[in-house]
Amino acid sequence: MEVNHINMQTDNGDPDRPAHPGIFPTHEAGKSDHQPAECSVDFPVSVVLPAGGTGERTGLQTPKQFCSFLGRPLISYTIQAFERVSWIQSVVVVVAKENMDLMTDIAQRFQHRKVRAVPGGSTRHRSICNGVLALGEGEEERPKVVIIHDAVRPFVEEDFLYKITMAAKEQGAAGAIRPLVSTVIATTSEGYLDHSLERAKYRASEMPQGFTYDVIYQAYQRCSESDFEFGTECLHLALQYCGTNAKLIQGPPTLWKVTYKRDLAAAESIIKDTLSRSACVITGESAQAVTLAGALQKAVGALDTELDVIPDLMGENGRYLLTDWNFIQVSVNSPCLSEVEALLTDLEAANRALLHPLVVIWVHLSGSDELSVSGRVAEPAAIMDLASAAKLRNILLYGIQLHQSKDTERWEKSMLRVAEITSALIRERSPALVGQLLQA
Amino acid sequence: MEVNHINMQTDNGDPDRPAHPGIFPTHEAGKSDHQPAECSVDFPVSVVLPAGGTGERTGLQTPKQFCSFLGRPLISYTIQAFERVSWIQSVVVVVAKENMDLMTDIAQRFQHRKVRAVPGGSTRHRSICNGVLALGEGEEERPKVVIIHDAVRPFVEEDFLYKITMAAKEQGAAGAIRPLVSTVIATTSEGYLDHSLERAKYRASEMPQGFTYDVIYQAYQRCSESDFEFGTECLHLALQYCGTNAKLIQGPPTLWKVTYKRDLAAAESIIKDTLSRSACVITGESAQAVTLAGALQKAVGALDTELDVIPDLMGENGRYLLTDWNFIQVSVNSPCLSEVEALLTDLEAANRALLHPLVVIWVHLSGSDELSVSGRVAEPAAIMDLASAAKLRNILLYGIQLHQSKDTERWEKSMLRVAEITSALIRERSPALVGQLLQA
Repeated sequence: MEVNHINMQTDNGDPDRPAHPGIFPTHEAGKSDHQPAECSVDFPVSVVLPAGGTGERTGLQTPKQFCSFLGRPLISYTIQAFERVSWIQSVVVVVAKENMDLMTDIAQRFQHRKVRAVPGGSTRHRSICNGVLALGEGEEERPKVVIIHDAVRPFVEEDFLYKITMAAKEQGAAGAIRPLVSTVIATTSEGYLDHSLERAKYRASEMPQGFTYDVIYQAYQRCSESDFEFGTECLHLALQYCGTNAKLIQGPPTLWKVTYKRDLAAAESIIKDTLSRSACVITGESAQAVTLAGALQKAVGALDTELDVIPDLMGENGRYLLTDWNFIQVSVNSPCLSEVEALLTDLEAANRALLHPLVVIWVHLSGSDELSVSGRVAEPAAIMDLASAAKLRNILLYGIQLHQSKDTERWEKSMLRVAEITSALIRERSPALVGQLLQA
Repeated sequence: MEVNHINMQTDNGDPDRPAHPGIFPTHEAGKSDHQPAECSVDFPVSVVLPAGGTGERTGLQTPKQFCSFLGRPLISYTIQAFERVSWIQSVVVVVAKENMDLMTDIAQRFQHRKVRAVPGGSTRHRSICNGVLALGEGEEERPKVVIIHDAVRPFVEEDFLYKITMAAKEQGAAGAIRPLVSTVIATTSEGYLDHSLERAKYRASEMPQGFTYDVIYQAYQRCSESDFEFGTECLHLALQYCGTNAKLIQGPPTLWKVTYKRDLAAAESIIKDTLSRSACVITGESAQAVTLAGALQKAVGALDTELDVIPDLMGENGRYLLTDWNFIQVSVNSPCLSEVEALLTDLEAANRALLHPLVVIWVHLSGSDELSVSGRVAEPAAIMDLASAAKLRNILLYGIQLHQSKDTERWEKSMLRVAEITSALIRERSPALVGQLLQA
């Protein structure tokens, strides 16, 4: 069994993309070099996820935590970021009463196992307090540490959760901070500049934050009605009512909060980037197909995708069914879709398309040297029908047809086009284009 | 001449999308209801655009102001936002010495007429100061008001520039502010929470800012080496050295600064949204084509694009060549591409694709009731060749083929698919897919 492995990634310094594919459950994270170091936490940790926002600032009707990305609501991504962490025992999502059913439905549909929904209060602090109280009442062990996070910060990673958790256990409270992006200024009541703050002394307070159960519980027991009504900062309550100075830890930029409509586009782009990192090319036994796959690897070149070439999904190669989000089936001189059908069956059996849409691209090489009507040996209607059925199961099937050519220049142009089309299809994951048989 | 006009936009409350298509020159802004109200400014106003950033926070090699969006660097969008304002006389872009040639090249390539590039200093204040001094030395009239903006805030709009300009003239200084998104906290030197600021009293200081020439000139004459070295806030210098209290004006969320890699995706998404608002459908005289266009309008339905249906681009309809970014040519039973070729010639003559890629979609209805190999009457190679040539001129050509059917259900399914494909092609503007003849 031969595995060709070319790493096309050059952008390792990108601070904006999660270091690990954190939006995937750990057991699916794939290549071992992507897996986070094992963090040992030997005490119970639970999460409160306030998700009662109304989404005013996005200008959309749907609150942003319920906006869909590639067919799945944002909050499901955030929940998944916690569920994949083995040492987190449960997640309490606090939602507005009118969204309780919606939340229950989401948890069922995407098979979230650690989640409970509880109704929120009229303000942020009342909602978080409800979540903390619910943790004390649950069937599971009362947590030692409670992590509070936002439903609209989906890209939080295990290593940072570990830092916050350990600091919270040690200090009583801990919170994520980020450098300020803009200068902060104080205004006069007439709307003039009063003074500007010295940027180096201040930080933006972000999420997640961590507290020992006792600290956050006591803080909410002791705080005033005015705190409940107007306050927003949990670290502040811990300091004021429990005398607990929070440890502040600088988090990665991925902690950012989806706030405006533009942030929805940014979040979708990060998810698409993460899903586009690698693809699995299946060649069968044909020597020509192997050659084609090799040429494709080369042509993909600067495109930020890693291609693994394998003959089939048997034996150890079966792991690709559990780790990859993109599959390219290369067929030579066989206009028949049976190989693609077999691949679709395998993917369905692996229940892979629950959390993200899978992309399957059928690259079909035909012998004809002419790009003519008669050269189209494949049946467009057949792939369209197959794609329509697959789409219902969240698998996006596309076809690319190219023609063998002895003219080197024409052949290289074709290969480049296959690479560009492949890369675009994987990146965009467009449901509107499924079933098309594209020409390279 | 009949013009069918259906407005599909439902998202008027979106605070994140520019209210006017501000990334286009005013004379191209199109429909009159999109044009900003005429602002009368009867004194000279110039702009300093510091663009010396190195882009550390995006994690990319290219500084973000030079990153390309749909083939054009971000800074060109920002320059365009000022050039389209009739009462702004000139823009001085301050760039690092090593990028002077690049900047000159960008100005030439995208035909920026009001721009001059000057070399920057070692810090932000030194660069802005260079820009202000250059304004005093130019051939044009010394400005009464100087607007300072960031190269990486491309979506600034005329009406807000007007507010800043008038307030600056009246008060000596004015600046844009935004509410804080995160709580700001003060930290102890050991990395613990010291206190959190009361959010209501503080604002984020954003750009643009405006100053009378005298205030900003004097402020830089009087300020210290330490200000030049470590300061960042121009409003602060105006207050400290000229006693000028800046008027603070809340700006729209579109003023946000492209800072992280995710912001590049957000900016691209806003540009694509703006370009996808409308499309012009050209039917010719065929009654069948007019019927098809009407069905397409209906099927586009909830998709956020406005379709205007016209028979041709003659006479008054020629205005669409100057206002629209997307064209759909409907052909019936004619596998010949002559209509598309004529459209491409018209678009080229209008020099329309300089600033944004144009999308041209050829929708071809054939009579056959069967989706079969023989039903593909159009020549795929011909449209591919045409598309390859058009792409060099920044025009993206795609084809969609559908078959007449008496089976109502099949016909409606086809129409829906044409609408979905059309919408996806217009939204994504994918260069990799040009020349494809897609099946609906």
